[in-house]
Amino acid sequence: MKRFTFEVYTEGNSDVQNLSPQVAKHLRKIGGDGILHLFVVGSTAAITTLEYEPGLVKHDLAALMQKLIPDDATYQHEQTWNDDNGHSHLRSALLGPGVTIPFTDGKLLTGEYQQVVLVDFDTRPRKRVVIATVLN
Amino acid sequence: MKRFTFEVYTEGNSDVQNLSPQVAKHLRKIGGDGILHLFVVGSTAAITTLEYEPGLVKHDLAALMQKLIPDDATYQHEQTWNDDNGHSHLRSALLGPGVTIPFTDGKLLTGEYQQVVLVDFDTRPRKRVVIATVLN
Amino acid sequence: MKRFTFEVYTEGNSDVQNLSPQVAKHLRKIGGDGILHLFVVGSTAAITTLEYEPGLVKHDLAALMQKLIPDDATYQHEQTWNDDNGHSHLRSALLGPGVTIPFTDGKLLTGEYQQVVLVDFDTRPRKRVVIATVLN
Repeated sequence: MKRFTFEVYTEGNSDVQNLSPQVAKHLRKIGGDGILHLFVVGSTAAITTLEYEPGLVKHDLAALMQKLIPDDATYQHEQTWNDDNGHSHLRSALLGPGVTIPFTDGKLLTGEYQQVVLVDFDTRPRKRVVIATVLN
Repeated sequence: MKRFTFEVYTEGNSDVQNLSPQVAKHLRKIGGDGILHLFVVGSTAAITTLEYEPGLVKHDLAALMQKLIPDDATYQHEQTWNDDNGHSHLRSALLGPGVTIPFTDGKLLTGEYQQVVLVDFDTRPRKRVVIATVLN
Repeated sequence: MKRFTFEVYTEGNSDVQNLSPQVAKHLRKIGGDGILHLFVVGSTAAITTLEYEPGLVKHDLAALMQKLIPDDATYQHEQTWNDDNGHSHLRSALLGPGVTIPFTDGKLLTGEYQQVVLVDFDTRPRKRVVIATVLN
């Protein structure tokens, strides 16, 4: 088991960050075959795979989330804490906090158009911590 | 590899149960660093991470699921089995049956407001079995 | 760590394929206890668990996806590539590209009505590659 941790700066509000380049750099050094698990600490962000191209990343995913879980609906969460991010928690729970990806020869076995992305649903810019665990 | 199993009693109908306390107790005994995988047996429950506070847990998640996948819509599943839980299966497939969490020194590396939760979407109280696998 | 790879032929358009029989055959040969991770290569398919019965598989899951993420809505993705599968990418990101399942004595610890399924959201028949990693 090997572990590395890295930080990701986001704009919040469904900002999508491509984790694949940074992960690839680490994995090249580790080498070999196995699985990589990525986990974002916190309850208002998520990790999944998505083609990292402007249409999906800058528009479609955010528009979908706004349709399914609007930021301006009423959430009891916001009455508990007097804050504004009930939608952020629900979106994150739906997408999930992590993903596991197989690799071989130190390279992720994702498809050509399949990147690992962090989506930040909080309502402000955040510094996120991603914990990567390698099992081989 | 280490494994432990535990039972969770739910009320069904989107009841959210906090697994973090029980998991923490087991992990403290196991100690060390690694990843923990949690899996709920059955096709009408799910596991994800969520802030365990009353607004989200007692209201917002259930309200969201009722909006997206209503319990009173028509599902062909219910004609196959003559039952009433088509929505339960779909909600569970969407959230997923498990989650993987990194830990260090026998402590989950979740955020302060990020708990591991089981959501039971079945239409009646259930006893659920959660299978925990520790890799380190 | 052990790995095996297999191909799945799909019809696309939310076609659901049951992976459990093929996976069970491989796991029986491997035997022992551990976890199995399944990952589908590509950004327009997903893996989750679902009861594999005709109502859910041939109708309800596809109908839900069409309601939440319609294939005939406007997606910026389709302007980037001049294609027609923006909805396929979003549905896949929501369900996720993989699942992890515990096993014991070479048998998946899924419930009686809980199968591992691949859902192909692309708009045409595809040959999919599933990468299975066994850790024990």
